[in-house]
Amino acid sequence: MTAISVREYDRGRKAEMETIRRIVDAGRMSASAMNKQPWFFIVINEAGKLKEVADLTQTGKHIAGASFAVAVVTDPSNRYHEIDAARAVQNMVIEAWDLGLGNSWVGNMDREKIKQVLKVPPNLHLLTVLPFGYPTRKYKGRKSRKPFSETVFLGAYGSPFP
Amino acid sequence: MTAISVREYDRGRKAEMETIRRIVDAGRMSASAMNKQPWFFIVINEAGKLKEVADLTQTGKHIAGASFAVAVVTDPSNRYHEIDAARAVQNMVIEAWDLGLGNSWVGNMDREKIKQVLKVPPNLHLLTVLPFGYPTRKYKGRKSRKPFSETVFLGAYGSPFP
Repeated sequence: MTAISVREYDRGRKAEMETIRRIVDAGRMSASAMNKQPWFFIVINEAGKLKEVADLTQTGKHIAGASFAVAVVTDPSNRYHEIDAARAVQNMVIEAWDLGLGNSWVGNMDREKIKQVLKVPPNLHLLTVLPFGYPTRKYKGRKSRKPFSETVFLGAYGSPFP
Repeated sequence: MTAISVREYDRGRKAEMETIRRIVDAGRMSASAMNKQPWFFIVINEAGKLKEVADLTQTGKHIAGASFAVAVVTDPSNRYHEIDAARAVQNMVIEAWDLGLGNSWVGNMDREKIKQVLKVPPNLHLLTVLPFGYPTRKYKGRKSRKPFSETVFLGAYGSPFP
């Protein structure tokens, strides 16, 4: 189970199209409220376009160095579009990790400009752009998290889990 | 990668506490925006309480037959609380599946009454109650999804992925 954001990618190693397909397919096959699947996935694997998108983000400059990125587009007419798409994202992240690729969730960006670059219809929402790539180093540790005892309860809020 | 909602559970087989711990810990260790972890997980494993919660839902009557359930509580003062918690849910779902347990996402419920049952502070949000249990049958097929070609594009919205 990956709990790590990876922002440095091996620029010499590009993912095969079959690898990319497996990752986005894990997103496509995700469960969603009433099986509505309120999502689209746009794969970006061309260096110039990765750079163009990276430059339109505040926290995603590393997209430029990714092997590929997936723009996750949702349909806001569905009440659960963001929640459902987040579930699909996590499926893609875990599938990618299984295949040896790291990623990070990029949230701060000029959504309207990126939507223009990717020709996304105006009525759809750009949730995130997810860069993927082979890590340049081993990730052994886990990021710090709040203690189990402050996060998990048994039976009622505040009751300790034994 | 599970893509299946499981609503029928083996009532004769309860999950060990260590199994439950591993599942909620997969949620606890999830990535979140700025590592804010805007979530709490309340484990419900007492039969009477499972029934009580089940009766307060419209689409979660099967919670009563679960081995245990996890109420996912979020902090709405965090802008990304629902998205981040959905990522944590998916981590729990996949960890559970690895351990042989199925689950389903329950969304329609009387949130305020369930919050009272679980003693959740009024300022927090109940995102979902997730029942988990050992399936009563093999799940071989995958649920129907929109075709790959209508969901995944390359380079721009509408451009075919080869």
